[in-house]
Amino acid sequence: MQQFGIIGLSVMGKNLALNVRNNGFSVSGFSIDKPEVDAFAKYEDDKLKPTYSWEEFVDSLEKPRKILIQIAAGKPVDETLQKLLPLLDKGDILLDGGNSNFHDTNRRYHEMEQHGIHFIGMGVSGGEEGALNGPALMPGGDEDAYKKVAPILEAIAAKNSEGHPCVSFIGPEGSGHYVKMVHNGIEYGIMQEFSEVYDILRKVAGKTNDEMSAIFAHWNEGLVKAYLSEITAEVLKQKDNLTPDHVIDHILNVASYKGTGNWMLEDGVHLGAPISVIAEAVISRFMSKATTREGKEIKWNGEVPQDLIDNLGKALQLCQAVAYAQGFQQLKMAADAYNWDLRYPAIAQSWEAGCIIRSSMLKDIEKAFAEGKKLDNMFQDPYFKDLMDKNIPALRNVIVLATKAGIPTPTLSASLNYLESIFNPSLPANLIQGQRDYFGAHTYFRNDRDGVYHTEWYEEK
Amino acid sequence: MQQFGIIGLSVMGKNLALNVRNNGFSVSGFSIDKPEVDAFAKYEDDKLKPTYSWEEFVDSLEKPRKILIQIAAGKPVDETLQKLLPLLDKGDILLDGGNSNFHDTNRRYHEMEQHGIHFIGMGVSGGEEGALNGPALMPGGDEDAYKKVAPILEAIAAKNSEGHPCVSFIGPEGSGHYVKMVHNGIEYGIMQEFSEVYDILRKVAGKTNDEMSAIFAHWNEGLVKAYLSEITAEVLKQKDNLTPDHVIDHILNVASYKGTGNWMLEDGVHLGAPISVIAEAVISRFMSKATTREGKEIKWNGEVPQDLIDNLGKALQLCQAVAYAQGFQQLKMAADAYNWDLRYPAIAQSWEAGCIIRSSMLKDIEKAFAEGKKLDNMFQDPYFKDLMDKNIPALRNVIVLATKAGIPTPTLSASLNYLESIFNPSLPANLIQGQRDYFGAHTYFRNDRDGVYHTEWYEEK
Repeated sequence: MQQFGIIGLSVMGKNLALNVRNNGFSVSGFSIDKPEVDAFAKYEDDKLKPTYSWEEFVDSLEKPRKILIQIAAGKPVDETLQKLLPLLDKGDILLDGGNSNFHDTNRRYHEMEQHGIHFIGMGVSGGEEGALNGPALMPGGDEDAYKKVAPILEAIAAKNSEGHPCVSFIGPEGSGHYVKMVHNGIEYGIMQEFSEVYDILRKVAGKTNDEMSAIFAHWNEGLVKAYLSEITAEVLKQKDNLTPDHVIDHILNVASYKGTGNWMLEDGVHLGAPISVIAEAVISRFMSKATTREGKEIKWNGEVPQDLIDNLGKALQLCQAVAYAQGFQQLKMAADAYNWDLRYPAIAQSWEAGCIIRSSMLKDIEKAFAEGKKLDNMFQDPYFKDLMDKNIPALRNVIVLATKAGIPTPTLSASLNYLESIFNPSLPANLIQGQRDYFGAHTYFRNDRDGVYHTEWYEEK
Repeated sequence: MQQFGIIGLSVMGKNLALNVRNNGFSVSGFSIDKPEVDAFAKYEDDKLKPTYSWEEFVDSLEKPRKILIQIAAGKPVDETLQKLLPLLDKGDILLDGGNSNFHDTNRRYHEMEQHGIHFIGMGVSGGEEGALNGPALMPGGDEDAYKKVAPILEAIAAKNSEGHPCVSFIGPEGSGHYVKMVHNGIEYGIMQEFSEVYDILRKVAGKTNDEMSAIFAHWNEGLVKAYLSEITAEVLKQKDNLTPDHVIDHILNVASYKGTGNWMLEDGVHLGAPISVIAEAVISRFMSKATTREGKEIKWNGEVPQDLIDNLGKALQLCQAVAYAQGFQQLKMAADAYNWDLRYPAIAQSWEAGCIIRSSMLKDIEKAFAEGKKLDNMFQDPYFKDLMDKNIPALRNVIVLATKAGIPTPTLSASLNYLESIFNPSLPANLIQGQRDYFGAHTYFRNDRDGVYHTEWYEEK
């Protein structure tokens, strides 16, 4: 009998199965797509078993069965659950490793619970390579069930710098997929920040692709030790195989998306989360499609300050922190709204390796949210408050220069505006409340006494 | 027999009934809240009739019946429809004047259609005062049915500077409520822009409330001829009746919202609309609640440029245009996605009087979108392109100064970044596509040849 089963054997499912096998656990694989099973069968050995029917697959597993569903999110997951249900026994454990919407996972968790089946919605990050060699895993659902699959998940997960596996129980219901959604929103934010810094480097500082590659590689050794720094350096230096140029100069500048960042923004709006960097990143992808391209190329003829590169590095470091901070702020609001007990240090730790937004800063975030610490926002933590105080002049300098040069900086601007607001004792929303009371008698609160007030604005007319 | 009926007699319904009566049409009123009917009965005359039951109300109306439902959006509207349905005849016309979500209106339109009832979802803007003296009306649904109520709606609507009523048929299904939702999103955007300009005036330019009131009143005569300029001037000069101060200094700076602006953002994300100013305005309201207020007050000790006030006026004028532009951009995307034939000049005209976002600029927008003109964005129109070219230096100056001073400017920054992007031939999204292809094999398009490409990024390792 096999210890683990995987349904769906395209690249992600196949690589996760190999990862399980390589870590000493036996695994069965099944797909409704027979060619996928045939391809999988090439890896068959005493610990890896291809199966060709729902019954053969389910019967090959030891009880309680532990089955990972690794297929396209949406309707296929519900169809799979309907196929599986009659074949399962109470106490069996299903994991959904796709990018499912957390609303769907909430529903499936409770539907399966009624049948005595444990359902774990699990975010998986790291792409094909991570699936094979160590992904970041974000499982949410039933904690007792999680404990039964934990040995396998901890074995296959990426390990952080201290050797801890990048997986731990996230929380109930769809919270695992929620955390993955927030991971992806942060990913949108940081990627857009990188692209704006790249835009300033080429158009204001006049750097070549190879020079920029070296700059990002340098930051990856210090200011921004992050997977995205590493791959940005790689992407920028890559030569094209169709022209004599660098490939970056021939990639069409229209950003695609699968939409998980959009989901984070949608739920952020629902919760009232101030996630401006995520919003601007999502909208920047829309803008990359909407722009008419009728304008002139920007030529910066002004002076290039000597400290520009250093300021850009510090600005990027700080803006990366803002993207994380907004993610954790939304997680806190979601935990309150959905009554989830989320463990923020564990979430930070689960992102420290294997996933796209991994960086050395996540260790500092793990410390900032160490058990017992309550933060309205991440910059209340002394380490990040200090980072903000140290780097905000650099970010202001970058914004001033980009503004003068005519370079759009939606997420860098949003990062600065966020930092100028989170501790601000006198944001000007009193004017909005005055206007609302004027035109709609919507009433207002006062800053000097309790109660609800309305002004008769027209009296003196 | 009465020519028009209104269900719901709180301030809005009552004032709309008086408006109908004052324009020479007879009207019946009904509410499930008897005290509302009693209050309404005080206005009874030969053209205004209170009724005390569903049957009495429906039987008092000439056929086809024309009934405006003016109650809280949501479930109450569905309950009202269920009460009315058995009492109506085929061909009767129902109008929903509440702030209903357009998804609900789409559904109700088709549900009522199955019963032979015409359903018109109608946005109403202008508050209590507008309801009585002339609101902006945005009716969508069945055009033949609209023609039967048009004489009454045109009579009660606000009139623009040329005497045209601020009402015309918007389009099918829930498009009337959709346009009202976009109106409200634009309203959020422009109000936030005003509050940021106010923040710079007080904290950087050091202006008093009365000085600021005079500045906004001055702009209302020229650069920004807008209802919001007018009332901002009024709000800033209003004295408090509990302290010797101006009331603005005692209004708590936490912005409330009923959520229609949020709906616009949600559907904008669904459509892929680049509505950054609306997003930042919605999120700024969230931030006004989320800020910890632990920081120090900003004291600007730098130089105050002589042209700051003039630059602020020009910046506000341009940013107001961006808020409108983003609204019309989303309307165009909605028209394409939902297969609605929307008439943009008529929409602009319907906002020219009676509503919160009315301003002299809407006449220019009406011209920009005159029949036959196709614009990807409003700034392709020569008038607005010229406004952009003329005012963008002022906006850049304002952003540079606010950045140096530490004043957050989320919607002013978003406006500038939008303008720097909409014609931009080389936004840096090519880096995002390169990163996505690197870590997820998501493929990319090229700028020099057709087809879908993937680079083997690791080859040279």
